Amino acid sequence: MIKLAVIGGVAAGMSAAAKARRVDPDLQITVLVEGEYISYGGCGLPYFIGGRIKSKEALIARTVEQMAGQSIEVRTCHSVRKINISARSLLVENLNDGGFYDEPYDRLVIACGARASIPPAENSGLYGVFTLRTIPDSLAIIDYLQKYRPRKAVIVGAGYIGLEMAENLLSHDCEVTVIQSMQQILPGMDPDLAIKVQQYLENQGIGVMTGTKVTGFEGRQRIEAVLAGAIRCPADIAILAAGVEPNSEIAAAAGIELGIKKAIKVDERCATSVDGIWAAGDCATIPHLLTGQDSYIALGTNANKQGRVAGENAAGGSASIRGVLGTTIAQIMDMEVSRTGLSENECRQAGIEFISHTIKSRTAAAYCPVSGAIWLKIIADRKSSRIIGAQIAGFAGSGKRIDALATAITVGSTVDELMNMDLAYSPPFSPVWDPILIALDQFK
Amino acid sequence: MIKLAVIGGVAAGMSAAAKARRVDPDLQITVLVEGEYISYGGCGLPYFIGGRIKSKEALIARTVEQMAGQSIEVRTCHSVRKINISARSLLVENLNDGGFYDEPYDRLVIACGARASIPPAENSGLYGVFTLRTIPDSLAIIDYLQKYRPRKAVIVGAGYIGLEMAENLLSHDCEVTVIQSMQQILPGMDPDLAIKVQQYLENQGIGVMTGTKVTGFEGRQRIEAVLAGAIRCPADIAILAAGVEPNSEIAAAAGIELGIKKAIKVDERCATSVDGIWAAGDCATIPHLLTGQDSYIALGTNANKQGRVAGENAAGGSASIRGVLGTTIAQIMDMEVSRTGLSENECRQAGIEFISHTIKSRTAAAYCPVSGAIWLKIIADRKSSRIIGAQIAGFAGSGKRIDALATAITVGSTVDELMNMDLAYSPPFSPVWDPILIALDQFK
Repeated sequence: MIKLAVIGGVAAGMSAAAKARRVDPDLQITVLVEGEYISYGGCGLPYFIGGRIKSKEALIARTVEQMAGQSIEVRTCHSVRKINISARSLLVENLNDGGFYDEPYDRLVIACGARASIPPAENSGLYGVFTLRTIPDSLAIIDYLQKYRPRKAVIVGAGYIGLEMAENLLSHDCEVTVIQSMQQILPGMDPDLAIKVQQYLENQGIGVMTGTKVTGFEGRQRIEAVLAGAIRCPADIAILAAGVEPNSEIAAAAGIELGIKKAIKVDERCATSVDGIWAAGDCATIPHLLTGQDSYIALGTNANKQGRVAGENAAGGSASIRGVLGTTIAQIMDMEVSRTGLSENECRQAGIEFISHTIKSRTAAAYCPVSGAIWLKIIADRKSSRIIGAQIAGFAGSGKRIDALATAITVGSTVDELMNMDLAYSPPFSPVWDPILIALDQFK
Repeated sequence: MIKLAVIGGVAAGMSAAAKARRVDPDLQITVLVEGEYISYGGCGLPYFIGGRIKSKEALIARTVEQMAGQSIEVRTCHSVRKINISARSLLVENLNDGGFYDEPYDRLVIACGARASIPPAENSGLYGVFTLRTIPDSLAIIDYLQKYRPRKAVIVGAGYIGLEMAENLLSHDCEVTVIQSMQQILPGMDPDLAIKVQQYLENQGIGVMTGTKVTGFEGRQRIEAVLAGAIRCPADIAILAAGVEPNSEIAAAAGIELGIKKAIKVDERCATSVDGIWAAGDCATIPHLLTGQDSYIALGTNANKQGRVAGENAAGGSASIRGVLGTTIAQIMDMEVSRTGLSENECRQAGIEFISHTIKSRTAAAYCPVSGAIWLKIIADRKSSRIIGAQIAGFAGSGKRIDALATAITVGSTVDELMNMDLAYSPPFSPVWDPILIALDQFK
């Protein structure tokens, strides 16, 4: 019998295992998971901490028992320490008893995810300084919140997770300050839109310090302040949300090629440099649809898509991923923020000449009580007029408008093709000229 | 000086006048409006009646004075009775004093809108039986609601306006029954989605009678019942919302060609059969992007687009409309309903072979409190695999997803091109596989 081993049991790993099972009912599938939980919605963790999601069980899509029902053996608390490529086996530590054993495989999917980046700051191991990637991380934060009722929170990093945590700590009655090393919040957005969100956050009472590098953490038993050079920011809880880095060390040690950002280099079929080994999700690169280059974009959507592709190919099928756009969305208090394709900054890095227009409009007819401000940017390639990027910030009903522009980018539409197109209008949903149409009109 | 006359002062007429002014600052522009109000958001009227929009002034986008500021003369309460094509003049009745006069023109835009269809039923003129097209219509209904506090309302017609009125009369503590002659509600949708909305309305306590033709209205001073053959439905208010018909009589009398549904036939430049005369909005036909045929789709979006095109061309510019998709959206209590392109029924009428898939999913990650049901249908041409229609019914966050599919249809995408595309995900906005992706997956 052919043996498929999967390292990792969250989005990519579980998608790979489940897909492989559907493609080949006879495959022997073993999933090795370092942690205790599998198949959880990592993106929901900030809301679990904020109390809007009531139980950790709600976050879990599939249990070990359910996987067993599909003849997929999941071993939690089993840490893969080494991949022995020539022997086609894994050195596994059973964390329950500390024992080591060799697990042979015929085919391997590596989906061991990413971990939070720890900024090079002193004392980042101080009690009260947290990262947030896993259910245990969130339980540790909740426990700390209940024990110490912190009143001053500092978030290091102003990406989506950082700002979602800002909101959810506010709901725990914390005074919240966000510290960001870049000159703007929301690194994936252009500054003109990011500043709208920053102004909103500041109006909501969240302190925002940009262009500020955290240098250390101070405290005796537990955290008392976050330091940024000469600045001392009192804090009785801190969250490190300064991005992630791929768990690619065991792959690298085995001689598997790494790519951009030290992620495991894979092709559009999720194949690594080693025959019979695929990688997927936050530990792997992913092709970008617009640049045609490898990118590293650690997102649940990408992990699920790559997991499926890796699982199908590992089971003997044939699947590939055309490329992604880095489409993201986040709810930040009453604001919605989304983006797709390339930002202006990414265009410059890729040497692409672009034209962009940003408009301000309303989410609904101005006379509707639900109507709120929306800022919407469209970026087009200067030569081809193709849409290559879009960004949105605004109130309820803003964010998901990005999908129409992601669709347009996917098929290579020009701004001209879409001008005056027939988008849905009714007073609670849009002005009669939808913000997307107003933005397209600027390219005339 | 060249004289442009515009008949009609709501969406199409005002867009035409404003656009003509921008194109040619020297044009003499006169807008003749039968009613007292101009430039109002007709789609907001149900919400004005329901009290969510507080004043009629809020519905008015531009006033006569504001138009005068752009050197556009608007004459309200001026009814055009005749178009004299050979003399290039209009016979106008000034409703303020009953006087008649001739208004010469060099170029003419007809944008006199549509009126509510009156079903062939007895006593439809009874007091308490209303239609809803204009601000005075809405004021009459509000006046009646305040005077008589009706408790039993019957809506004749289960399109968007009918269902929006059902909701807004419910908020006036009416017991509401909707009577629809077709076998389903929401004539623009396919039955499988329409039934989901019907079940929801019934669960909310709204009576729905489909396949039922209203034959008359009964009452002494004012309405007491709506009759449908042998069925007698007690009512102390009734709203006729059984569609609209174009105000095309004066055009027809002048010899201007009519087209489908007796609307004024126009080409993609909004030109009528008579040189120097354009028509736009609810009185005119509009090209359909998918069938390439004339259609009659009376919507604010179409009126605004055609108004702009007619105004630009009447001012000597060159503009055209590529065609519309019949994209619509409506909020019906907590449900959102939208559609674009062709329905299955319209495919059959056009002789187009199609494949369709309807899926049920969630608007957000299942563990999010905001997550609700969504039903989403995609219709593709059987031969080309191009997407030619889509329909959505579901809870908050459902409806505007239609725009991504309208975008896809506009550029002629196939289902394959969009499969696994990169749509925005975050728990409050979508499951990790967006409902659109799940529906596309069915075409594999």
